[in-house]
Amino acid sequence: MTTTAIRGGLVITAAEETRADVLVEDGKVAALAAPGSAFAQRWQADRTLDATGKYVIPGGVDAHTHLDFPFGGTASSDDFETGTRAAAWGGTTTLVDFAVQSRGQALREGLDRWHAKADGKCAIDYAFHMILSDVNEASLKEMDLLVGEGVTSFKLFMAYPGVFYSDDGQILRAMQRAAGNGGLIMMHAENGIAIDVLVEQALAAGRTDPRHHGEVRKALLEAEATHRAIALAQVAGSPLYVVHVSAEEAVAELARARHKDLPVFGETCPQYLFLSTDNLAEPDFEGAKYVCSTPLRPREHQAALWRGLRTDDLQVVSTDHCPFCFSGQKELGRGDFSKIPNGLPGVENRMDLLHQAVVDGHISRRRWIEIACAAPARMFGLAPHKGTIVPGGDADLVIYDPHAEQTLSAATHHMNVDYSAYEGKRVTGRVETVLSRGEVVIDRRKFTGRAGHGRYVPRTTCQYLT
Amino acid sequence: MTTTAIRGGLVITAAEETRADVLVEDGKVAALAAPGSAFAQRWQADRTLDATGKYVIPGGVDAHTHLDFPFGGTASSDDFETGTRAAAWGGTTTLVDFAVQSRGQALREGLDRWHAKADGKCAIDYAFHMILSDVNEASLKEMDLLVGEGVTSFKLFMAYPGVFYSDDGQILRAMQRAAGNGGLIMMHAENGIAIDVLVEQALAAGRTDPRHHGEVRKALLEAEATHRAIALAQVAGSPLYVVHVSAEEAVAELARARHKDLPVFGETCPQYLFLSTDNLAEPDFEGAKYVCSTPLRPREHQAALWRGLRTDDLQVVSTDHCPFCFSGQKELGRGDFSKIPNGLPGVENRMDLLHQAVVDGHISRRRWIEIACAAPARMFGLAPHKGTIVPGGDADLVIYDPHAEQTLSAATHHMNVDYSAYEGKRVTGRVETVLSRGEVVIDRRKFTGRAGHGRYVPRTTCQYLT
Amino acid sequence: MTTTAIRGGLVITAAEETRADVLVEDGKVAALAAPGSAFAQRWQADRTLDATGKYVIPGGVDAHTHLDFPFGGTASSDDFETGTRAAAWGGTTTLVDFAVQSRGQALREGLDRWHAKADGKCAIDYAFHMILSDVNEASLKEMDLLVGEGVTSFKLFMAYPGVFYSDDGQILRAMQRAAGNGGLIMMHAENGIAIDVLVEQALAAGRTDPRHHGEVRKALLEAEATHRAIALAQVAGSPLYVVHVSAEEAVAELARARHKDLPVFGETCPQYLFLSTDNLAEPDFEGAKYVCSTPLRPREHQAALWRGLRTDDLQVVSTDHCPFCFSGQKELGRGDFSKIPNGLPGVENRMDLLHQAVVDGHISRRRWIEIACAAPARMFGLAPHKGTIVPGGDADLVIYDPHAEQTLSAATHHMNVDYSAYEGKRVTGRVETVLSRGEVVIDRRKFTGRAGHGRYVPRTTCQYLT
Amino acid sequence: MTTTAIRGGLVITAAEETRADVLVEDGKVAALAAPGSAFAQRWQADRTLDATGKYVIPGGVDAHTHLDFPFGGTASSDDFETGTRAAAWGGTTTLVDFAVQSRGQALREGLDRWHAKADGKCAIDYAFHMILSDVNEASLKEMDLLVGEGVTSFKLFMAYPGVFYSDDGQILRAMQRAAGNGGLIMMHAENGIAIDVLVEQALAAGRTDPRHHGEVRKALLEAEATHRAIALAQVAGSPLYVVHVSAEEAVAELARARHKDLPVFGETCPQYLFLSTDNLAEPDFEGAKYVCSTPLRPREHQAALWRGLRTDDLQVVSTDHCPFCFSGQKELGRGDFSKIPNGLPGVENRMDLLHQAVVDGHISRRRWIEIACAAPARMFGLAPHKGTIVPGGDADLVIYDPHAEQTLSAATHHMNVDYSAYEGKRVTGRVETVLSRGEVVIDRRKFTGRAGHGRYVPRTTCQYLT
Repeated sequence: MTTTAIRGGLVITAAEETRADVLVEDGKVAALAAPGSAFAQRWQADRTLDATGKYVIPGGVDAHTHLDFPFGGTASSDDFETGTRAAAWGGTTTLVDFAVQSRGQALREGLDRWHAKADGKCAIDYAFHMILSDVNEASLKEMDLLVGEGVTSFKLFMAYPGVFYSDDGQILRAMQRAAGNGGLIMMHAENGIAIDVLVEQALAAGRTDPRHHGEVRKALLEAEATHRAIALAQVAGSPLYVVHVSAEEAVAELARARHKDLPVFGETCPQYLFLSTDNLAEPDFEGAKYVCSTPLRPREHQAALWRGLRTDDLQVVSTDHCPFCFSGQKELGRGDFSKIPNGLPGVENRMDLLHQAVVDGHISRRRWIEIACAAPARMFGLAPHKGTIVPGGDADLVIYDPHAEQTLSAATHHMNVDYSAYEGKRVTGRVETVLSRGEVVIDRRKFTGRAGHGRYVPRTTCQYLT
Repeated sequence: MTTTAIRGGLVITAAEETRADVLVEDGKVAALAAPGSAFAQRWQADRTLDATGKYVIPGGVDAHTHLDFPFGGTASSDDFETGTRAAAWGGTTTLVDFAVQSRGQALREGLDRWHAKADGKCAIDYAFHMILSDVNEASLKEMDLLVGEGVTSFKLFMAYPGVFYSDDGQILRAMQRAAGNGGLIMMHAENGIAIDVLVEQALAAGRTDPRHHGEVRKALLEAEATHRAIALAQVAGSPLYVVHVSAEEAVAELARARHKDLPVFGETCPQYLFLSTDNLAEPDFEGAKYVCSTPLRPREHQAALWRGLRTDDLQVVSTDHCPFCFSGQKELGRGDFSKIPNGLPGVENRMDLLHQAVVDGHISRRRWIEIACAAPARMFGLAPHKGTIVPGGDADLVIYDPHAEQTLSAATHHMNVDYSAYEGKRVTGRVETVLSRGEVVIDRRKFTGRAGHGRYVPRTTCQYLT
Repeated sequence: MTTTAIRGGLVITAAEETRADVLVEDGKVAALAAPGSAFAQRWQADRTLDATGKYVIPGGVDAHTHLDFPFGGTASSDDFETGTRAAAWGGTTTLVDFAVQSRGQALREGLDRWHAKADGKCAIDYAFHMILSDVNEASLKEMDLLVGEGVTSFKLFMAYPGVFYSDDGQILRAMQRAAGNGGLIMMHAENGIAIDVLVEQALAAGRTDPRHHGEVRKALLEAEATHRAIALAQVAGSPLYVVHVSAEEAVAELARARHKDLPVFGETCPQYLFLSTDNLAEPDFEGAKYVCSTPLRPREHQAALWRGLRTDDLQVVSTDHCPFCFSGQKELGRGDFSKIPNGLPGVENRMDLLHQAVVDGHISRRRWIEIACAAPARMFGLAPHKGTIVPGGDADLVIYDPHAEQTLSAATHHMNVDYSAYEGKRVTGRVETVLSRGEVVIDRRKFTGRAGHGRYVPRTTCQYLT
Repeated sequence: MTTTAIRGGLVITAAEETRADVLVEDGKVAALAAPGSAFAQRWQADRTLDATGKYVIPGGVDAHTHLDFPFGGTASSDDFETGTRAAAWGGTTTLVDFAVQSRGQALREGLDRWHAKADGKCAIDYAFHMILSDVNEASLKEMDLLVGEGVTSFKLFMAYPGVFYSDDGQILRAMQRAAGNGGLIMMHAENGIAIDVLVEQALAAGRTDPRHHGEVRKALLEAEATHRAIALAQVAGSPLYVVHVSAEEAVAELARARHKDLPVFGETCPQYLFLSTDNLAEPDFEGAKYVCSTPLRPREHQAALWRGLRTDDLQVVSTDHCPFCFSGQKELGRGDFSKIPNGLPGVENRMDLLHQAVVDGHISRRRWIEIACAAPARMFGLAPHKGTIVPGGDADLVIYDPHAEQTLSAATHHMNVDYSAYEGKRVTGRVETVLSRGEVVIDRRKFTGRAGHGRYVPRTTCQYLT
């Protein structure tokens, strides 16, 4: 058993910023010690990493990824090997990906398939949410079993009729079940029934470019669905987690709910904080690179999202990483925006973009760690092993250089996709070294990890509710 | 041509209270004159009605009735003859009833059927809204035609899946059409999909009594649907009129919309203002008398409805008159509240109950006339012929005795139903004499009208929007 | 006694638009008759005015003017003769001006002085509010007496410390008194104590230009005072009328209060609807022309004011007419914006500017009449004699040409002031003929009235509260 | 130098709950170590405290006490010796007391006087806020100096005219100064000018009992002042901390401000969470025991306060400890509630009462530590030395027995006052052992500390703003 000491850094968690040495033993944090204390000095580790002038932060927890995900006749271009490796490069040490129930099949079947996809491939630890595509008596019962084995969150869609869509009755039933078994309902909140009418009308009118994707998926219809999901959760007596919130009006609905002290939570993503409909309108079909749902919004919405992150009306920033290559995949939607696979790459960029938000003054350092590490871990039952730095917790640690500068680019990123949504963007701050359960997987900007190091992590239920 | 003078009364409209003589010629109001003016004195009418000590008010406009209405395997117990006569007794001189499109049939077919039901039978004037049960390309096109012939409002249901229910896409399409043709969408706003889940669960659990009707149709699910309808109307750019608002939370949604200056309107009914879930809980299945949808709410909601009427967040009080006899009809639901025909009698009681609200201090006299006469007339394109007293308008006039006392009872009412929802209630104020287009149809508490006097009145589009 | 018939016009009141002949006898409206009715035809007037193609509207009621008003070492440039004549030119037939209690003096003294100023001079009818500059036991008692003789509204200032300012204790006492005697408290709602700090700081920093007047009198400090006045009125159990609301944030406070069904009312003025801080920033000290308090706001506030007028969160548009000549008066503040006399001319422009708002689509025709005529009359106890057209009411009538075009200018206006706040503005609509109690005072754009025709009108208490 | 190990407890901070050994060296926390790790086992302390089955929590930080405080012709009955000793008994290891500027005197003078009161007397560490009674050019300049020496927060009063009261101009100036020097303005938010009118009226009407204290100090006047303080802070660009929030309406104002992302904070106190106007109404003048300002509110307000603590619209729970003996002190107000010295004892009870709130389900354990320790420390520039458990931080630690039961009573408490506000209340949880900078001051329910151990702690500026 190797012991490691990370000395001289500023340890930042959601709660504290302290100069402390972090002492690792057996893959776990054994102690945090005051530098220079007799205590710290006496202790000798097998290996010492020097973090002087750097931050020591918990590894990121990305609670929303879609690796090897079938969508619209193709599949997302990162599998569990390339995706988790890219995550590690970006300072993220835990993913929660989405297993999918297919219509007419059991949850078990989908979960087994996703276990098979991930098994032996991952560079970092991972867990699963379950997408419910077919809420019925059988799948409701299966929910209890899955909670028991560590799949404690279930995603429903108010969008995508005919594919993932659940009607309000199915949603209510699933929420009632979650209220009983401790599960957390995650909601894609867009009124897909209404949106599909607008899609059809847009296409019929020849409005086929990517930017129309943003126009038909109206902010009001995201806010409406958000409000409806909250009402149904109130009726069911269940908590609710709304994924990828992008519209100011939707944030307002979450704020209303939280002001009433309802157990309602919201997630946004870097693309909504840094990109906008300006990108969707890029010429020569380049806008397709930015097609995702909920869609990018006009630039003015960004301020509301930042404010929501500060006021804790939004708790989590995940990536919704779901990459499709521009060439051959995004291009499926030339001439019909509704055929563009929905999704953006981003798993590698999240920690850096949010550090940039610290530099830009949007959030504090502690809040950076909270929304990117601690809150997703606690939300999805991974604390305190993940998302913070605490004696006994997993030694998922990042030495982060807050002064390094870098330029985001497809030329240098490690995600398996032929473009970057942030091509050319300069940011300050960069991951230097990453430990996953005490093992160094990125060592001063070299990948030293391996496929198969990452383990499946069963989760407890949402830790915001206790 | 007979001329009539109504002298000595206090003329009350939504806008003014004035001592004035009302001079009627050719079925219309020819003039309002200052009593004692040379002008008034000079004029001699064929007939003079003395209104000294009384109010002279516009005949009531009840914009929500269901006469001869098939529901749940039976039909409402008042037809156009008994219903319009009872309305006249209660000081109401115009009804807007609902013609029904059956699933799979044309609007025209339904409208013709309702014309046939009413033709030659009515004691007072009437018009029609159209219920859309089947929104599709053909019925959307028909909407334009109906607007052209004076059926300018269209009711949709977010409740009653499988019967009247429209999904959000159908609703959006109908609203878009209305935005183009000037029609007004009327909405039954309850999340019927979710409610049906709760109904099924309640029945399965043996909760079959009438009071469970109120418990499963939750206030939150009325508010949710109200919010959703408003959002869809915003997307469509159309106005919206929400029928039979009963929940405080739904009023709050209307208030939010109106604060944003959206063209959103709300109606409530006397049953929500004067009755409550206490009535639904009456023993021996008596609660069935009070089963209607939206349901009666706990007593605390009444204050919010009165406040909404004062703040103009609610504009109209209609009856939703839809009577079913307790014996033989309501009884269909013994042992299963979901089989109780939905509806209450009330067309005869509205003007008196709202006058009682004046006596009780809830509203002013002018507001009484506004919510019961002027606003529904203007909302549904009947002004200034109906709902007010103005030169050139129809002489639909009521001499109202504000001091008379009466007791509401099935023993004395004229509606064709075997119970009164207000049995035994004492109220102050009573209709004395009623004119319909200048003809006296109630003469000092005697019915002097006739079936067939009442005419169909084509309507212009909503007059709140111009 | 002369009788007059105004035939062929479209009679517009707050409530109705009707083609009707208006028959005037003895200075009052004797009847409204349907044109072409036997009734109308039979009647012969001494004089007939043809209103074909024109509107017939109630004479305007301007509830906020300062004629012959001492301020800042000078006095407003219109006295009761020139001011009321200009009002008549502009279609306004009733003014409610402000009598002033001086510090250390009785209300009676101030009221007598204002009666003396007005007596025998006015072209149109007038009434008085009373400004309380010195709330104490004696003046509180006098309030009761004044209500008894028709001065039923009392203005307090939260601004102008050392001059008109009342502290919160004085305000509370006056409100308690009004709660008892039926009086209506009118509030100048700006936090003058805080503003004076900012004024001093601005001057000390050399920020002396007129535009700094707008910058120091912050919207937030108007909203704060509005909120505070509402809270004090709630504690006192009294109604409240907030004068010259200019800030979006203040409208929001009124909306909050009205949503709670509190008897709180708000007035705005044409200058806030049509002008902005752009005007205050005009070079060469021209901005001084637009110095008034509350100040003009950035252009973005206008939308909130229009919305407030549509949603009835604002009820009245008055002018706050308080003219000072640019030359010799406004110039007192060169080099020190705090010495610029506060006030704008406008009594002649209000009806036209608000008609332009109808043309521009901000408000409906009926709402035009409501905010300019009916609401101020009812607010201040003048209905139904003023502000509407009803049998028995005063024949204060305007024949208004909705198609005439005109250019507002000091060159052509009749106010005694050397500039127009709207110089060069083109508007559609113009007053053609004006009757004051049946006498023609403007006859097809000629002044035919006389000083002394106008009478003092004692007022009842606020008619919105009954 | 003695080293101490606290082993086997559940370490609870605002952020985490972890089983960890806490290792103390040189008065500071040297390390937190995973129990059973090689690391923890290897380390030998001079003294080991067994916390098995107990909580190890940070010592409480009470940011609002008034020891040896002159008020109403008497002085609070705890001085710095008795008060800090009682605090230690209650698990509180840091107090921030209020030094007072007298009218006409310098801040320095007041601060020196308070240093003299505390010096050599305290059992635990302490710091000072400064009460500004006389905002003027000189005292504004002194504010900068005090910030420099660790007095970084300044309290202003909108109540108590003639004593502590500042007008809005003084408040604005002080806030502007704080915006510049990093100081935090603390506000007693009640409209004292209006309240004094109501006090005078109540006394004149013979309403002299203690309960009238609660009636005249209306919730609306607390909310008003809260709103006003927020507006002034916005104008000044300064943060704001509102002390002793008791009214639901005031919480709503804070929530509005926080929703806008303004740097506005709120504190409440145990008395508002556990007591009510029912106590103020206790017979035989017993209500006087509960006279404090802001006053106790009707019981219904408690739910809003708990909700505010959960939603983080309230951040801190302090005691406002300001004890006066019933006998001889509270009795000064017999026959005139306005003469009852304002204040309650409570410094010893806070940690226990808030633990009871955990037991009762109002808040989580972590939130308990946040509102009682971490948030006040961070708010007032004491983190991370105080309020949390972190390597390098002060070893202010409490071993807390969550299962012990106790009865609060004047018979057993250690505060120098002849009654308990919570007499007879049973609570679960009790302080067992307390360390102040590594020294045991309470050892298994024995006081082992000493006057003079406690040191003055200079503070940095508010740590919520960086």
